[in-house]
Amino acid sequence: MSNFLRNSLAAILAAGTMALAAPAQAADCNHSAYGEGDEIGAANLITPERVIAASKLVKEGKTHPLGIVIDPDMPAFPPRGMMLQVIQPNQQFGRDLTPDLGWDMVYNDDVAQLWLGIGPQLDGLGHLGHAGMFYNCHEGAEISAVTGLKKLGIHTIPPLVGRGVLVDMAKHFGVETMTAGQPIDGADIEAAAKDQGVEFREGDIILLHTGWTDATLESDPQAWVGGEPGLSNEGAEYLAGFKPVAVGADTWGVEAVPPKEGDKVFYGHVTFLKENGIFILETMNAGPLAEQGVNEFMFVLGQARLKGAVQMLINPVAMW
Amino acid sequence: MSNFLRNSLAAILAAGTMALAAPAQAADCNHSAYGEGDEIGAANLITPERVIAASKLVKEGKTHPLGIVIDPDMPAFPPRGMMLQVIQPNQQFGRDLTPDLGWDMVYNDDVAQLWLGIGPQLDGLGHLGHAGMFYNCHEGAEISAVTGLKKLGIHTIPPLVGRGVLVDMAKHFGVETMTAGQPIDGADIEAAAKDQGVEFREGDIILLHTGWTDATLESDPQAWVGGEPGLSNEGAEYLAGFKPVAVGADTWGVEAVPPKEGDKVFYGHVTFLKENGIFILETMNAGPLAEQGVNEFMFVLGQARLKGAVQMLINPVAMW
Amino acid sequence: MSNFLRNSLAAILAAGTMALAAPAQAADCNHSAYGEGDEIGAANLITPERVIAASKLVKEGKTHPLGIVIDPDMPAFPPRGMMLQVIQPNQQFGRDLTPDLGWDMVYNDDVAQLWLGIGPQLDGLGHLGHAGMFYNCHEGAEISAVTGLKKLGIHTIPPLVGRGVLVDMAKHFGVETMTAGQPIDGADIEAAAKDQGVEFREGDIILLHTGWTDATLESDPQAWVGGEPGLSNEGAEYLAGFKPVAVGADTWGVEAVPPKEGDKVFYGHVTFLKENGIFILETMNAGPLAEQGVNEFMFVLGQARLKGAVQMLINPVAMW
Amino acid sequence: MSNFLRNSLAAILAAGTMALAAPAQAADCNHSAYGEGDEIGAANLITPERVIAASKLVKEGKTHPLGIVIDPDMPAFPPRGMMLQVIQPNQQFGRDLTPDLGWDMVYNDDVAQLWLGIGPQLDGLGHLGHAGMFYNCHEGAEISAVTGLKKLGIHTIPPLVGRGVLVDMAKHFGVETMTAGQPIDGADIEAAAKDQGVEFREGDIILLHTGWTDATLESDPQAWVGGEPGLSNEGAEYLAGFKPVAVGADTWGVEAVPPKEGDKVFYGHVTFLKENGIFILETMNAGPLAEQGVNEFMFVLGQARLKGAVQMLINPVAMW
Repeated sequence: MSNFLRNSLAAILAAGTMALAAPAQAADCNHSAYGEGDEIGAANLITPERVIAASKLVKEGKTHPLGIVIDPDMPAFPPRGMMLQVIQPNQQFGRDLTPDLGWDMVYNDDVAQLWLGIGPQLDGLGHLGHAGMFYNCHEGAEISAVTGLKKLGIHTIPPLVGRGVLVDMAKHFGVETMTAGQPIDGADIEAAAKDQGVEFREGDIILLHTGWTDATLESDPQAWVGGEPGLSNEGAEYLAGFKPVAVGADTWGVEAVPPKEGDKVFYGHVTFLKENGIFILETMNAGPLAEQGVNEFMFVLGQARLKGAVQMLINPVAMW
Repeated sequence: MSNFLRNSLAAILAAGTMALAAPAQAADCNHSAYGEGDEIGAANLITPERVIAASKLVKEGKTHPLGIVIDPDMPAFPPRGMMLQVIQPNQQFGRDLTPDLGWDMVYNDDVAQLWLGIGPQLDGLGHLGHAGMFYNCHEGAEISAVTGLKKLGIHTIPPLVGRGVLVDMAKHFGVETMTAGQPIDGADIEAAAKDQGVEFREGDIILLHTGWTDATLESDPQAWVGGEPGLSNEGAEYLAGFKPVAVGADTWGVEAVPPKEGDKVFYGHVTFLKENGIFILETMNAGPLAEQGVNEFMFVLGQARLKGAVQMLINPVAMW
Repeated sequence: MSNFLRNSLAAILAAGTMALAAPAQAADCNHSAYGEGDEIGAANLITPERVIAASKLVKEGKTHPLGIVIDPDMPAFPPRGMMLQVIQPNQQFGRDLTPDLGWDMVYNDDVAQLWLGIGPQLDGLGHLGHAGMFYNCHEGAEISAVTGLKKLGIHTIPPLVGRGVLVDMAKHFGVETMTAGQPIDGADIEAAAKDQGVEFREGDIILLHTGWTDATLESDPQAWVGGEPGLSNEGAEYLAGFKPVAVGADTWGVEAVPPKEGDKVFYGHVTFLKENGIFILETMNAGPLAEQGVNEFMFVLGQARLKGAVQMLINPVAMW
Repeated sequence: MSNFLRNSLAAILAAGTMALAAPAQAADCNHSAYGEGDEIGAANLITPERVIAASKLVKEGKTHPLGIVIDPDMPAFPPRGMMLQVIQPNQQFGRDLTPDLGWDMVYNDDVAQLWLGIGPQLDGLGHLGHAGMFYNCHEGAEISAVTGLKKLGIHTIPPLVGRGVLVDMAKHFGVETMTAGQPIDGADIEAAAKDQGVEFREGDIILLHTGWTDATLESDPQAWVGGEPGLSNEGAEYLAGFKPVAVGADTWGVEAVPPKEGDKVFYGHVTFLKENGIFILETMNAGPLAEQGVNEFMFVLGQARLKGAVQMLINPVAMW
């Protein structure tokens, strides 16, 4: 076959990633405060000064993994799921690798089939939008090739380093765990923060502790994924106003489900991701920090930079 | 069916994870210096003092992602491979989510099928051993269930935080990139470290820069994965002697391939993982540090804690 | 959590499979001749009489697998791909199953990650449509849940049994193999069929042999998938006129790629699937039949009935 | 890098598929009656005469799919599982393909992650053996590469065509469904066959109906997979004595689980696969045949020929 023919099909097939039909549902959009074409949103707020300041929060030398252990069997937002296999390539039935390698090496490898939005996860700016439009006037139809996001992929996000702050909302409400659908408004956060001596600053990573995952994930996994306490639409707006780099919680979706009466379910994701370029951190292991009364810490997240991925399994590190 | 019957099959099936036949190939083993039963090896060396000391290395406020971008098409140690799909659940053919959610939300999700030992990766202590035996007298046959390692899983590893040091071996040899199979001996490291003002301390994370990935991954991916410069068996012993938490390089396997004459290929993995509980960091993006002459930095790695996984895609963060 | 809350989320999540927004791009559609609501199209033409007649074509007692061997590494329409692992559960490093099972059983299992439209495949009626609309006025937005087609899934198709006929188009054109983009018009088929003594009847399974896969798949796999000889738009109409149950060829897409001048690429799929409910059989191993001059045979296809799947790897059996 | 170096790693890596260490557990073995080196076992019994004879069993023109519908959520022998996604490549958020293809084509594709031993399945001769040894003295360590079986792969099996016979064991025992662990001995089969007018002949495909799957799969899926009625070890020997091509049942494993007292669980698989090269057909949809009293039929199975696969999802066709 001539190169002409081969290339002609290649062109047909590749076209899907280049051309764009007029969008049926383009929404109004405002370009990001970080500039037209910006893809990293509030990560722009990470400055050398803030990184240095964050490092100074390490006073006791303690560390904490903010990612819980991800059990392949744990529930997730439908229809997400996962399978994992640990295998021993070329060592079937005790086969010795000596003939291959000259010595009797043994090794395990692993293969996973998984939706990336499972357990502790980072929502990139290409995850969720409104009326066809994502962060910074990036149209979903234009940026979302099946082989990977062409813009706003998880790989574009620089290390998220900064001052982490924790607000213990369960403590504020005087409970071990908040309940599914229980909303968190700005006034609640404000009061809790004041009580707990937490001040929000630009460039922070803000975590909320509700007690939900500690209380339900093991004991009633279907309840865990079937609802959650969390931010009201107004609560999300309130937090976004502080210009954090990221907002997270110890729940699978950060927002109240079912939503507060009158709210749009999951609309806080639009407030954070699309409107403000603020990253979302889900299923954060905030309980141990709450228990120890740790409200301020150095936060470091380096997510695996899988090209074009939308979300990523993560394990940010808190240090104080 | 009676519970008796159901349980009897459950017992049959589960037995594989409990009973153990006499191993055909049990090797001699020495229990770890960190104690019988220990699963985290050199991560025991991470102390509050060292975490604090590491945090003080953040002087300029700079950060660097040590994980390169993982292209689903990049080569890997055979037969490892990966596929990724970005999809729009329930939004097929522009279907509007308003009837489901009450507003016109749009979102992307992603599904991956992948071997976890691809690109920038952390080798857990259950990855590689010798003669059937892994770190701390853990027998491969006993710890390696198909559904996940029962011991030494990647999820057991605490945040790896410490003083990172970089030795630029390419600079030492006066080249842009070392060549496949070019060995790095202890004397080479010693000389390079001395020249570059690098001192090794217990609890460090030690990275070597060879130039290999920067020089070949894009231009000749098959060459990249077909060989690599790296540690000789003796070089691995030399580094292990400093009691680092982890050793890494900008190559897919840290060691020279083909191996130095007289060496056992990949045997440094035994020295690090099995003999000393030292973690291995592969395909680290060390080039930018080498270019900027950054030899000392705060190193933070929180790997996604997938239960029972052997390896993990990672992106440690260097800060200085 | 109350059942109310749990159910409320369940309702939100499930709604995606029940509600339907007004389609943006609904095309005109004609209900199928087989009745409103019909999902199996031309499979309705399979009658007891025709099954009996087909069985009488088995005269020599010969059988032939129409599915070629599917190599996990074979190319496919982008971005389709596949990985396969053969593994030995619970037998890691030669572990003996006797403690589990009471005797020393050994076994292999296998795991695959694959796009179903690879190699020899059956296109179901939910695979391809026009302007948002599939066979029998089924709207894509309505029938295509991410967890599986709600209508027209591959599992709905009854055994495809009937009279198979083969037309050797390569022979007609006097070549070993036709070339990529070389079109097959109705007149070509008519002439070839006449020369070769082939008569088309309602309910047939019609296969075309072009020589393409035999000539290129092994020797130049990228050429193989980069183009193909095949039906022109008119040629597809011509064949559909005979009311076959299925049409297939020894190419990955049945139609000419690049298309005949003036043709719409892949539009024959609309003619077959959407307009006529005729199934498509791709990458059929027609060469051995052509070589032996077998033009008429009993055709039997039982595709694995994966619920909601769109396509399926197949291996129909020809018998004569 | 020189070709020498590249090839040296290739050799290291490929060696795993060529060399073989002395097997630790080699069992005694008897070469197959079909000849040393034979890979297709009882498929050798399929002769033109038998194919012709089978075709003559098609008297009423009826067809029946022997594969049940495979729900991705159905249970399977642990840890087997499956996920399926139906997606719309390059049509994200209603994106129109016209710019790519010149017209407004729409299409669905599908991706699956699955263990191949799920639901209605064919066990190839490389699936199960004894003491390291499989059919015809093929050693597991030698034939079982991680990328696919090197011998006895599912792709080597020719179309399984022959006379199918059904014995209704539930009817014999006077029940709708037999119970988990209820054994079927040779005497039971003999009596049932006599009552039901079934005669066994060399080259047959023999199916047993127990009622198990019809009775439990939907109503209590965990019970379904947690046990099953089926052949005793002696019952398997009895059937093997008739030299069938394949033996199947309407259960996930053909044999009684828990096994008959004194039996080895699953040992019938050794009798069929390893000792006699007889294929096993699991989870066959035998109920409708039993209901209609169909005891003899033409059986045609063309399994998708995935290279090196161990098992395959199937849907054999019964015709009478």
